[in-house]
Amino acid sequence: MAPGAAKKSILERLDAGEVVLGDGGYVFELEKRGYVKAGPYTPEAASEYPEAVRQLHREFLRAGANVIQTFTFYASDDKLENRGNEQSFTGKQINEAACDLAREVADEGDALVAGGVSQTPSYLSCKSEAEVKAIFMKQIEVFVQKNYFEHVEEAEWAVQVLKTTGKPVAATLCIGPEGDLNGVSPGDCALRLVKAGADIVGVNCHFDPVTAVKTVKLMKEGVEKAGEKTHFMVQPLGYATPDCNRQGFIDLPEFPFALEPRVLTRWDMQKYAREAYDAGIHYIGGCCGFQPYHTRALAEELAKERGFLPAASEKHGSWGSGLEMHTKPWVRARARREYWEKLQPASGRPFCPSMSVPDGWGVTKGDAELMQQKESTTQDELKVLFDKSATNQ
Amino acid sequence: MAPGAAKKSILERLDAGEVVLGDGGYVFELEKRGYVKAGPYTPEAASEYPEAVRQLHREFLRAGANVIQTFTFYASDDKLENRGNEQSFTGKQINEAACDLAREVADEGDALVAGGVSQTPSYLSCKSEAEVKAIFMKQIEVFVQKNYFEHVEEAEWAVQVLKTTGKPVAATLCIGPEGDLNGVSPGDCALRLVKAGADIVGVNCHFDPVTAVKTVKLMKEGVEKAGEKTHFMVQPLGYATPDCNRQGFIDLPEFPFALEPRVLTRWDMQKYAREAYDAGIHYIGGCCGFQPYHTRALAEELAKERGFLPAASEKHGSWGSGLEMHTKPWVRARARREYWEKLQPASGRPFCPSMSVPDGWGVTKGDAELMQQKESTTQDELKVLFDKSATNQ
Amino acid sequence: MAPGAAKKSILERLDAGEVVLGDGGYVFELEKRGYVKAGPYTPEAASEYPEAVRQLHREFLRAGANVIQTFTFYASDDKLENRGNEQSFTGKQINEAACDLAREVADEGDALVAGGVSQTPSYLSCKSEAEVKAIFMKQIEVFVQKNYFEHVEEAEWAVQVLKTTGKPVAATLCIGPEGDLNGVSPGDCALRLVKAGADIVGVNCHFDPVTAVKTVKLMKEGVEKAGEKTHFMVQPLGYATPDCNRQGFIDLPEFPFALEPRVLTRWDMQKYAREAYDAGIHYIGGCCGFQPYHTRALAEELAKERGFLPAASEKHGSWGSGLEMHTKPWVRARARREYWEKLQPASGRPFCPSMSVPDGWGVTKGDAELMQQKESTTQDELKVLFDKSATNQ
Amino acid sequence: MAPGAAKKSILERLDAGEVVLGDGGYVFELEKRGYVKAGPYTPEAASEYPEAVRQLHREFLRAGANVIQTFTFYASDDKLENRGNEQSFTGKQINEAACDLAREVADEGDALVAGGVSQTPSYLSCKSEAEVKAIFMKQIEVFVQKNYFEHVEEAEWAVQVLKTTGKPVAATLCIGPEGDLNGVSPGDCALRLVKAGADIVGVNCHFDPVTAVKTVKLMKEGVEKAGEKTHFMVQPLGYATPDCNRQGFIDLPEFPFALEPRVLTRWDMQKYAREAYDAGIHYIGGCCGFQPYHTRALAEELAKERGFLPAASEKHGSWGSGLEMHTKPWVRARARREYWEKLQPASGRPFCPSMSVPDGWGVTKGDAELMQQKESTTQDELKVLFDKSATNQ
Repeated sequence: MAPGAAKKSILERLDAGEVVLGDGGYVFELEKRGYVKAGPYTPEAASEYPEAVRQLHREFLRAGANVIQTFTFYASDDKLENRGNEQSFTGKQINEAACDLAREVADEGDALVAGGVSQTPSYLSCKSEAEVKAIFMKQIEVFVQKNYFEHVEEAEWAVQVLKTTGKPVAATLCIGPEGDLNGVSPGDCALRLVKAGADIVGVNCHFDPVTAVKTVKLMKEGVEKAGEKTHFMVQPLGYATPDCNRQGFIDLPEFPFALEPRVLTRWDMQKYAREAYDAGIHYIGGCCGFQPYHTRALAEELAKERGFLPAASEKHGSWGSGLEMHTKPWVRARARREYWEKLQPASGRPFCPSMSVPDGWGVTKGDAELMQQKESTTQDELKVLFDKSATNQ
Repeated sequence: MAPGAAKKSILERLDAGEVVLGDGGYVFELEKRGYVKAGPYTPEAASEYPEAVRQLHREFLRAGANVIQTFTFYASDDKLENRGNEQSFTGKQINEAACDLAREVADEGDALVAGGVSQTPSYLSCKSEAEVKAIFMKQIEVFVQKNYFEHVEEAEWAVQVLKTTGKPVAATLCIGPEGDLNGVSPGDCALRLVKAGADIVGVNCHFDPVTAVKTVKLMKEGVEKAGEKTHFMVQPLGYATPDCNRQGFIDLPEFPFALEPRVLTRWDMQKYAREAYDAGIHYIGGCCGFQPYHTRALAEELAKERGFLPAASEKHGSWGSGLEMHTKPWVRARARREYWEKLQPASGRPFCPSMSVPDGWGVTKGDAELMQQKESTTQDELKVLFDKSATNQ
Repeated sequence: MAPGAAKKSILERLDAGEVVLGDGGYVFELEKRGYVKAGPYTPEAASEYPEAVRQLHREFLRAGANVIQTFTFYASDDKLENRGNEQSFTGKQINEAACDLAREVADEGDALVAGGVSQTPSYLSCKSEAEVKAIFMKQIEVFVQKNYFEHVEEAEWAVQVLKTTGKPVAATLCIGPEGDLNGVSPGDCALRLVKAGADIVGVNCHFDPVTAVKTVKLMKEGVEKAGEKTHFMVQPLGYATPDCNRQGFIDLPEFPFALEPRVLTRWDMQKYAREAYDAGIHYIGGCCGFQPYHTRALAEELAKERGFLPAASEKHGSWGSGLEMHTKPWVRARARREYWEKLQPASGRPFCPSMSVPDGWGVTKGDAELMQQKESTTQDELKVLFDKSATNQ
Repeated sequence: MAPGAAKKSILERLDAGEVVLGDGGYVFELEKRGYVKAGPYTPEAASEYPEAVRQLHREFLRAGANVIQTFTFYASDDKLENRGNEQSFTGKQINEAACDLAREVADEGDALVAGGVSQTPSYLSCKSEAEVKAIFMKQIEVFVQKNYFEHVEEAEWAVQVLKTTGKPVAATLCIGPEGDLNGVSPGDCALRLVKAGADIVGVNCHFDPVTAVKTVKLMKEGVEKAGEKTHFMVQPLGYATPDCNRQGFIDLPEFPFALEPRVLTRWDMQKYAREAYDAGIHYIGGCCGFQPYHTRALAEELAKERGFLPAASEKHGSWGSGLEMHTKPWVRARARREYWEKLQPASGRPFCPSMSVPDGWGVTKGDAELMQQKESTTQDELKVLFDKSATNQ
């Protein structure tokens, strides 16, 4: 599609019953590629290494994504300030660069750009509603749209600010079936977001596809029971995390440097796409752990509903058919749907368990231990944590 | 390093006792990014999507690789002919494009270019020595260097051809501790390659790091027992595959579309780098499944020996130190080496086993079933295979 | 204790705050010893092989049990009639023999005898309340007391019949936290049993200790919330079954011939005893899968509360202390509580999953498929089942 | 068979090509029943609780065993002296009682009695050949026959002593495919035992059936290659232990109190019986972990070869056929061989690994740390061991 050509808006698409595919997770994938630092997870690469960010945008576009998210995760100034962005880039510079990259790539296809407004450290440190809203307003000077909240209250504030821009607002929470960190149920969370003005509600990150679809189903029930209506979206992890508690994958002992055995296959993703679609969720995407081929799997599963295959399917035989000419006959015998659907893949790790017990010491918003750290934890402080950790194991 | 500046050759480096880091696996990573088709695994992306190949080269360079392999896997004409390269690109065009890309990126740093000569379908179909050598010669019209053989005899032929170019020859086999597919032991394989003229011998692909290091140790013993001397290299999978038999990971039921739970962590890679180095292997790299952060892990583990950290370490805190400022104290408690070294990561897949039984119907070189397929297997032929497969399970 | 000496009754003990330990599972253990047929699980061994039954009674007594259950599981006539009891023994003969054996052994120590009234096939086949009560009455001609119901309604009928005997009535259901097969919650089930006259309520069989204790906690909450009071008991499986659904372990694919990897250790049992006690459950026993050393583990964990160790502890060092003189120092190093408490024991089965998906085709009481079979399923009928089973997998 | 009736001797049976079934493991099973103390594992129960020992003998006989082993494991005086036999029973008294019990039960059927001569602590403490042989001679004053050696040299001494009795000598080692603790291969071990005069050679204990059969096959190859001939026997663990190293299951972290998840199923045992038989091993039995139903599974698998089913099969439907009348149709669908043969049973323990790393600090015969302990390890000594253990983990 030529740059400048009029595209249907996100709501036009959803209102028309189209399936909209989101893209995947940028920070985790760019971390693996060497451009994002795990821990801070700040997006300065948009300014520092634009070709790397552009390439990943293109891969998701090519995989079938209709929405390209600006790579602006955690770019609010209070994050950048204390999370080790040692370059001279300001949040505003990074956001502008990120928006340019996303628009550039989105215009190479029929995709929309979505800007993200994120949970703020200030909320956890109990700054006031006015202060938190001011931070959101600052983020949206440049762009507009959505997500990453663990408390519905903070998300409501964000939606209220975003609505003043006049653009569609999609609001996603990082919650599971048990609800937000204050115990508000998914149904009630969704209802509050709809009432605050959100046009699309759903969940993103923190939980695996199975859990995330289950949660959005609960949201849908809550909204429909109240006689309201909205669109639903889901952007789960690309990891299998059945062992998560309410806090999500951050509390799993493997976060963030040993999640590999949990990476989902393309077949897991096809199953996820089908389940989400069947549940009436029409904005279907991914978050941390999603790689371009995961997004392509969503597009292939829903090719009939969408009416086309994504560009990247030129390099992918449906259900393993690319193996039909393999030299070994027993590998050729894998060129079929039934084989991959039934396979329970081994971990290759017989000394490892299949589930973990989440960490977590029972603290929540406002607790001294969760105050945003201004400086790196000292070795003495770490020593205390390590001992505490050993005791909690 | 400026383009054109004189770089130390591979043998100068190894003779001087330097650690040389190889890059990682291109076909598997580019498949996930949407540019390579699994099954044929042909490298036409070098011509079709050069920016995608260039980007991955850069990521490996940035991660610390001293050698950039040309993306020419399986580009011999007999492969391209029957493996579904439906573009108009010839093997020669692809090889030239691939060499240009590799050189361009290698010259952005202090890295060398390695061209690859691969196992040919013709050998499995029992073409003569002269025919197979002619194919090798055709491949090296453009470039020079190494690997991917399951039979030492075919590798010897390749080394003999390559030696005529006057360039250093590195020869790697895809074998495990049990030796090649004809039962030649690793020690004998290595000795034959050294005698054929190889300057560097080792293994690549097919087995995980633990197995690969074990195999190269056996090679080293064989060479040293015969009073010979050479350099050793290792480029294993980025997957945990303790359940492989002699045929390697292709026979695992998860190959190639459900290997995710086997992906190794960065900590596994640091362990691998240390073990390889301690075994006297100084050319250390990766193959299928290796991503840039895996290569970076090798570079970080051997930073002291090499005298520097790789560029990509600007975005990576050693041993999890990037977590020191995380909001949650129990995540901060993971900012230490002991934590990650001891962690046995869960698969998140309680319905899956931890090991698989390899497939394989006892056939080998020359068997009718292994003759290179000229056309896609028909549905009827596949039906026979599926039934045979069900019976063998 | 001399035969005939007056013992404190079960209610006197519980009212006085004593911990009462139940015995374990007879049918599963006697099946392994060769005296009970899996499938029918009828108790004719009480008449056929009294020395085998007596020996197991003695082992449980010696392990610390205060209650010896008569080995009369499924001895109602409608069971015996159609479940392959090909001997000439009538239900009455078997029941009398079983009572004699239980009394004989109980009198060798300070233990009580508990007779069991079981769930009837007639209920599943929708016989009337009067018919089912008549079957219960027939069972108690000889003896009195408790359990094994999946529907609280049937259990209520049993309690009402038992109350007419004037003896204490303990009523246990085979339910989990989701409630009975009609969806009645554990709290409501317990309340209904208390109101029907039960002196002790709880759960037995079908679920593992973790699940069973959780269920009885819910029962306790339900009873206490209604302002009622009763004693609580728990007699779970000796197997780990976190993957059970509402129907319990019978639906697990491993039931009944491949449950071995799920057998709990003595340390699991000590943990269970502590959790049950801490939850205010004072009648603590076991069911299928419990072996004498499991019961001893309960007695050892609660030795302080009970004031004594069981007889069988003469042959057991607490927390592995029997290893203190082992020849190998690394085995001696296992002679401590911390070691066994922390150990996560391996299955030795890397090709097996850690959890299963329960079978179950959505049928329930009254469905044609659950009508009690009068004759062995024919090969034709089995063929239909096998095909259906394959489809459901 | 009437007491006193002439039975065919063990060699007559084997020479005639009959399959001889051994019984199972006494110490582990009696430990679970409360009559043996884990750690010392001394057999004083033969004197203390003869009814318990008699009952287990009977169960193995009923399950199909042709040989009843006297319950005299570790009854040599130097063991009894320092392993906590606090009763007044001497080794001689225990041995006599054990022989009486075994004979009594064997005479209830067509079974033979086998007395056991065990590995001595004195050997590990480097007592001389004469001293060790004197201990053996003392053991056999009362009875005669076989096994439990980790060093072939000690076993040879035992065979030489036993041969002087004129009775058939069966000699089994506790070794795996890697050979004895001094590195003598299974083939060489077997040959030495044959040359020392053993009539039957094989392995018992320490390894699982798969490993044990593999080892005896190696023994057979060694004996046959040398042109010798003998009978072979195998008596493996009833546990799955693929993760054992040369030292066997004692070094597994789960030994001896958390081996439950490794218990083999009856179907595993049928497979074992078939493999042993097919390998030409005709004396097939079990050791630690074997329960009566395991022995019955051997007898059922080989019913055709032996010409009859064991007595205990009256209570066992072949291949799950006992389920044919089960109320639930999906349980009836398990009444078939294919179901149980293919089932990969779940552990129900998602937080546990499937394999363990064996302990072991590299010590062997003669090391100070292996000297037989005269007294219980003191708390101070244990502290040292625990610290060492933590360091070795």
